[in-house]
Amino acid sequence: MVNEIGGSSRQITTPKSEWIDISLPLRDSMVQGPVEPLTPHIEFILHRKKFNNVAMCQININSHNGTHIDAPYHFIEEGETVDQMNLDTTIGRARVIEIRDNMSIKPEELKTHDIQPGERLLFKTRNSSRPERMKKFFADSVYVTVEGASFLAEKKVRLVGIDYISIGGGGLENIDKTHLILLNHGIYIIEDLDLSEVKAGKYEIICLPLRLEGGDACPVRAIIRPV
Amino acid sequence: MVNEIGGSSRQITTPKSEWIDISLPLRDSMVQGPVEPLTPHIEFILHRKKFNNVAMCQININSHNGTHIDAPYHFIEEGETVDQMNLDTTIGRARVIEIRDNMSIKPEELKTHDIQPGERLLFKTRNSSRPERMKKFFADSVYVTVEGASFLAEKKVRLVGIDYISIGGGGLENIDKTHLILLNHGIYIIEDLDLSEVKAGKYEIICLPLRLEGGDACPVRAIIRPV
Repeated sequence: MVNEIGGSSRQITTPKSEWIDISLPLRDSMVQGPVEPLTPHIEFILHRKKFNNVAMCQININSHNGTHIDAPYHFIEEGETVDQMNLDTTIGRARVIEIRDNMSIKPEELKTHDIQPGERLLFKTRNSSRPERMKKFFADSVYVTVEGASFLAEKKVRLVGIDYISIGGGGLENIDKTHLILLNHGIYIIEDLDLSEVKAGKYEIICLPLRLEGGDACPVRAIIRPV
Repeated sequence: MVNEIGGSSRQITTPKSEWIDISLPLRDSMVQGPVEPLTPHIEFILHRKKFNNVAMCQININSHNGTHIDAPYHFIEEGETVDQMNLDTTIGRARVIEIRDNMSIKPEELKTHDIQPGERLLFKTRNSSRPERMKKFFADSVYVTVEGASFLAEKKVRLVGIDYISIGGGGLENIDKTHLILLNHGIYIIEDLDLSEVKAGKYEIICLPLRLEGGDACPVRAIIRPV
């Protein structure tokens, strides 16, 4: 019999995982977008020394803090809420596309990638190489233009991901239009991915929205592995 | 070209998903355990009529609200935090075991299930059939006894799940001891699963902890499919 409270280190070793974490750390006071009104606050409220050796934290965050997924309901009143999202869309084959344009993602560049219906596309841009991305908001992040969003809708992709807080960039009008086009066409959006260590190519993705009842978005863990 | 803002319904249909959602809804003011000091509060802070047709919510929750995973750090100061958890442990083959004992999960019943090293075990108990489980805290929920936890540690399982808020039940001493034994042996714990629609048998599970930096636990979406 194992000692009642005694322990050992992890008894099951697994081979080095193939999964690559493409989520950013979710942390207290982390940078957020221009619209979110409250700073993320994550705090330990039970402390081991005071409470029976238990640590427990309180998480006060916006649905769009950190790596997160947008549900259609974020922009569309009758759209799917985050707990209604189709998990066959958030799990499956995905492609990482490296974007050369340092300003925005436009149809001209997208056309060179032979995009197929039903694809899950993750855009790696120069955002991934900005070292201060966790600390300050860049209004000049690489984003999907309105025309780029329309092109992706026409191509009938099912999910898009980007390596910064907003797929619509820092300008409010473009933020709104790009989101609205994508979400109105049932295209899910994952924002604030960390693609810095990832090469362009074919992968499998897993990203599970929380079952946040009636929510417009939620923080997620997103992972990929090469196929 | 697709209409700029115009939309269509979801353009990609998927065959009926094999995945079964075993997560509870995460909702405002939902019931929580006896230790958590603040009521979960989930609120829309941007409203479409006032803010450019955007809806956005603020989520103020405990790390143990709703379906959640406990990291070793919850009870062990030098243990893994939730962002350090091994995803090869939270993804993979799993077994749902139906527990007949209406009080607790003891070695006597566990022994009948031929438990193997490295297994992920989800315990379906009478907790799953209590209709008010989302509304009130039951101190008499079916839980894993201290002896049951030691048995699971001896068997070197890697993950256990239970269909109620606390794997240690409603009594504080047992809560602490059961958690400590499991976590001290590197066994991850998923609590407050919804196994009401699930039969005993073999499955594949996906459950991804958020990358909550330094966290002791976090809400998760957990899904399974038969294998």
